Amino acid sequence: MNAFDWLPPAKPIGGEQYFEDFALGDVFRAKPVSVSEADIIDFARRYDPQPFHTDSAAAAESQFGGLIASGMQVMAVSFATMIEAGFLRGGGMGSPGLDEVRWWKPTRPGDTIVMQARVLESKPSTTRADRGYVTLVFEVFNQKRERVMSYNCIEIVKRRSASTSRAPTA
Amino acid sequence: MNAFDWLPPAKPIGGEQYFEDFALGDVFRAKPVSVSEADIIDFARRYDPQPFHTDSAAAAESQFGGLIASGMQVMAVSFATMIEAGFLRGGGMGSPGLDEVRWWKPTRPGDTIVMQARVLESKPSTTRADRGYVTLVFEVFNQKRERVMSYNCIEIVKRRSASTSRAPTA
Repeated sequence: MNAFDWLPPAKPIGGEQYFEDFALGDVFRAKPVSVSEADIIDFARRYDPQPFHTDSAAAAESQFGGLIASGMQVMAVSFATMIEAGFLRGGGMGSPGLDEVRWWKPTRPGDTIVMQARVLESKPSTTRADRGYVTLVFEVFNQKRERVMSYNCIEIVKRRSASTSRAPTA
Repeated sequence: MNAFDWLPPAKPIGGEQYFEDFALGDVFRAKPVSVSEADIIDFARRYDPQPFHTDSAAAAESQFGGLIASGMQVMAVSFATMIEAGFLRGGGMGSPGLDEVRWWKPTRPGDTIVMQARVLESKPSTTRADRGYVTLVFEVFNQKRERVMSYNCIEIVKRRSASTSRAPTA
């Protein structure tokens, strides 16, 4: 049984991924990752020390009824799985930002989550021949078939033709 | 010399912070925090393993010309300083999401950054007497007087009157 077999087919990610590898509608998906109580507390102590992320007794008294993962942890842990799967390998040039970041459902100890990215738009740069801009919606789902998180992101991606020689400096 | 003395005066955060403590225009600011090369590599290996975050030699060859911190690290490290300063202590009930997350400048090894939050809007819930909604713009600045990052966020905040008794469950 795969808890995520209801998700649409994803496109395999090869060894590297350049601008030419992103087409409208393409879906790329990472491996599922589980989040333990220790993971939640460890992340939150460093980066988001609110009681409902760090203290299971306080969290039980909160409106969440128990410990939940920091939203930043859900974002970071799941994005790491994408990069590890080869997403943007070789082609990634960073991102100027994110839009409409939404946490739809809490992530609790023992949950398994999976991230996917779907291409919304893809266009070459009109001023720099070595790159293009890919707009994607990133979504995180859990084993209960809930959408946990979503956001839109523009990725700056190197063109395959620019990968064989040093990229122009300007 | 304080590298951040050009920033507007901030309102002190008391021991706790409830809905009534947020008024339009209020600015709350955390202590500055420095980010080392080791911090950047450690975070990126776990959460954002792209070469320009994890490998200084590869980063030197990239368009960034050297190692830069993951944008998620800038967000997480600086948000932690706000929580440690007492922001939302007692009153924080989480956030449904972020809008217009933008990374304006890279954060490099040795940089010192500081986060502040400015209140854009504050309104009580019309359906739940125990809470209100506070919209803030979060901004991160560095020691070079650059704006590094910004985002807008709605925080759900407990009313002070609801803090003395157990919050209603519905």
